[in-house]
Amino acid sequence: MNNYPSRIIEQAVEEISKLPGIGKKSALRLALHLLKRPESQSLQLAHALVQLRTETQFCPQCHMISDGGLCGICHSHKRDESLICVVEDMRDVLAIENTGQFIGLYHVLGGIISPLAGISPSDLQIDSLIQRVSAGKVTEVILGLSPTMEGDTTAFYLTKKLKEFPIKISTIARGIPIGGDLEYTDEITLGRSIVGRVVYE
Amino acid sequence: MNNYPSRIIEQAVEEISKLPGIGKKSALRLALHLLKRPESQSLQLAHALVQLRTETQFCPQCHMISDGGLCGICHSHKRDESLICVVEDMRDVLAIENTGQFIGLYHVLGGIISPLAGISPSDLQIDSLIQRVSAGKVTEVILGLSPTMEGDTTAFYLTKKLKEFPIKISTIARGIPIGGDLEYTDEITLGRSIVGRVVYE
Repeated sequence: MNNYPSRIIEQAVEEISKLPGIGKKSALRLALHLLKRPESQSLQLAHALVQLRTETQFCPQCHMISDGGLCGICHSHKRDESLICVVEDMRDVLAIENTGQFIGLYHVLGGIISPLAGISPSDLQIDSLIQRVSAGKVTEVILGLSPTMEGDTTAFYLTKKLKEFPIKISTIARGIPIGGDLEYTDEITLGRSIVGRVVYE
Repeated sequence: MNNYPSRIIEQAVEEISKLPGIGKKSALRLALHLLKRPESQSLQLAHALVQLRTETQFCPQCHMISDGGLCGICHSHKRDESLICVVEDMRDVLAIENTGQFIGLYHVLGGIISPLAGISPSDLQIDSLIQRVSAGKVTEVILGLSPTMEGDTTAFYLTKKLKEFPIKISTIARGIPIGGDLEYTDEITLGRSIVGRVVYE
């Protein structure tokens, strides 16, 4: 697949295949798809991509994407400012917001500590989290990180950093998913759900 | 996932998810990926997409994509002009070129007859194929179409259209793939490979 008949196609395939999860073959498929569609679709897509990168701003408080200034959540008067949920990226915020169960604010780290991927604590929005907590309004930090090696590492690091403050530190519950079947749950999850059992009060 | 925190993100997700095989979740993932990368990557991608749609031209003879004028294959003096391989789209040309086994020219239909998808013969480059054949230089048309219902329909239609000309019409061989195992070949392929057996001469 090296002999593209057109330099323009080659360039488009090259650029599209830089996206994660899209190889040269898929990129070519997408490029040919765009060629078959009305011109306006490609131009709108290109415009949206330029806007995305040149006009998007980040909330100065929680580092969530915003159209400018504080994001909608930080700006709202209905949220509980004493509660901060720390998450890896914006998708987690959207996922938690969709549950409708959380009324506090967020703090988007912008990644997760991963020595393998070369991401160290200094690459993440950890200093600004410490600042938010040290301002004194916060009473609880909930660590909403994925139950993976990297998530646990990040949680451990944050716990160490935050323990000097007089706040509660908690993590989202890990255990058997609702609707899940005990028999088919993997042993690590099941083990954790026994260790982390909840006592009826 | 309806409450995007930013209008710009929402628009980007909207446009990206119009691509085939990319849903809203993947689109959001791609958008967030671009946000983490250097600005130049997004701008280059956008530029390549605009160029793709505004500057790409099609070869006036075989309808393959070209940078302008005849495509490299039609333009070459080393190819056998009496042989035309009819294919569905550009990807098939690239696949056949990669084999290095074909020295003739191509004819890209730009699709395949598919009543279900609303694609009729008039949507394809069939008239221009007839014109190329009627010019008299062509001695054989090879139908390089996929062995699917639509491919067979298209092949049947083309055969009917081409039989008034004094040319050979052939189709690429269908049978058990090289390295394939008889036992694990599906019965339709195996059946066809028996019916279409090749006699040793």
